[in-house]
Amino acid sequence: MNLSVDEAGGAPVAPRGYTADKDAYRRRLKRIEGQVRGIARMVDEDSYCIDILTQVAAVTKALHAVSIGLLEEHIGHCVVSAAAESEEAGDAKVKEALDAIARLLR
Amino acid sequence: MNLSVDEAGGAPVAPRGYTADKDAYRRRLKRIEGQVRGIARMVDEDSYCIDILTQVAAVTKALHAVSIGLLEEHIGHCVVSAAAESEEAGDAKVKEALDAIARLLR
Amino acid sequence: MNLSVDEAGGAPVAPRGYTADKDAYRRRLKRIEGQVRGIARMVDEDSYCIDILTQVAAVTKALHAVSIGLLEEHIGHCVVSAAAESEEAGDAKVKEALDAIARLLR
Amino acid sequence: MNLSVDEAGGAPVAPRGYTADKDAYRRRLKRIEGQVRGIARMVDEDSYCIDILTQVAAVTKALHAVSIGLLEEHIGHCVVSAAAESEEAGDAKVKEALDAIARLLR
Repeated sequence: MNLSVDEAGGAPVAPRGYTADKDAYRRRLKRIEGQVRGIARMVDEDSYCIDILTQVAAVTKALHAVSIGLLEEHIGHCVVSAAAESEEAGDAKVKEALDAIARLLR
Repeated sequence: MNLSVDEAGGAPVAPRGYTADKDAYRRRLKRIEGQVRGIARMVDEDSYCIDILTQVAAVTKALHAVSIGLLEEHIGHCVVSAAAESEEAGDAKVKEALDAIARLLR
Repeated sequence: MNLSVDEAGGAPVAPRGYTADKDAYRRRLKRIEGQVRGIARMVDEDSYCIDILTQVAAVTKALHAVSIGLLEEHIGHCVVSAAAESEEAGDAKVKEALDAIARLLR
Repeated sequence: MNLSVDEAGGAPVAPRGYTADKDAYRRRLKRIEGQVRGIARMVDEDSYCIDILTQVAAVTKALHAVSIGLLEEHIGHCVVSAAAESEEAGDAKVKEALDAIARLLR
C-alpha cells in the first residue's frame, strides 16, 4: 500500500475543489484506514461487541466529516463555477450534489 | 445475515456472540479497509468529488451492515443470557446496547 | 430515557413494553406533531431555508429518541421474554428487531 | 391548525428558493404531520412496537426528502447568487449550507 505518494507523481492535475487539501485528505483517510484495521484487530482479539460498535460509530463519524469537507469544496468550486457558466449547467451540478447528499443520508 | 465461515480457522475462544462468524467479519473489514484505501487513491488521482462521495457512502453502508450483524449477535447472546441471569443484569445490557444504537444513529 | 408518567391515566392494557410509558410517548409525539406544524408555518412565512432545515433536523432527532425508547422497551420485554420461551422464538424476535434498526439507520 | 392558507394571504414575499413549491411543501408537511398523529394513535391502541418503529422510520425518510428538496433549492438559489455577488458571500453561504447538512447527517 502506498498512500504517501511523492508529490511529483501525485501533483494536482485536475482543478478539483479538494486539490489544495489533498494531503489533509490523504492523512484523514490513512487514519480511517488504520481505524478499520483496528476494528479487525478487535474482532481477532474477541473484544467486547459494544466496544467494537463504538469504534465502528467513530469511523462512520470520521467518514461523514470527510464527506462534509468534500461537499463544501465541491459546492464552493464545481457547482458555483458551473452556475456562473449557465443556469442549466448550474442546475445539473446542484442536482448531482443533492443526489450525493441523499446517498449520505441513507 | 448469512455468513459462511470456515470454523476451523476462526475457532471460538471467548464467548462473544460474533465469535462463530469471526472469519466473515475479518473478511468484511478487510474489504472495507481496501475500500478506504481506494478512496485515498481516488484523492491522489484527483477523481471527481461526487465519485469519491459515492464511495464514501458505500463504505458507510458497509460499516452499518457490520454494526447490524454485531448487534444481532450481541442482543441474541450477551443481552439475552444476561436477562436470563437476572432482570437487573438484563436491563443493564439492554441499556448498554441501546446506547450503542443511539451512537450509530448519530 | 427518564419519562415521568401518570400511571393512573396510562394504565397498561396490552403487554407492550412501552405501555407503562404510554402517556410520555403521547406527549412526545404530540410535541413532534407540533414541531412539524411549526415547520409548515415557517414555509408559509417564507422563513430562511437554513432555519427550516435546522427545525427538520430537530424533529428527526426527536423521532430517533422515540425510536431508541421504543426499542429499549421492546428488546427488554418482547425479545427477552421470547428468548426465555425458546431459542427459535428469541432468534426470530432478535432478527425482527435488527431489521427495524436497519430501517432506522437508512 | 390552518396549513392550506389561501394564496392571497400566503403569497410569496421573500425570494426563497422553495417559494415556487410552497404548496407542495405544505402538502408534504401536512402528510408528515398526519403520519406523526398516526404514530400517536398506534401508541394509544397498543400497536406492536416494531410496527410503530416502521412508521417512525417512514416519517424520518419523508423528512429527509423534504430536507433534500429545500437544500437543492437553497444551493441553487441563495448559495449560487451569493457566490455571483462575491467570493466571500458565496463561501459564507456554502459554509452555512454544509453546517446544515452536517446537522442532518447527525
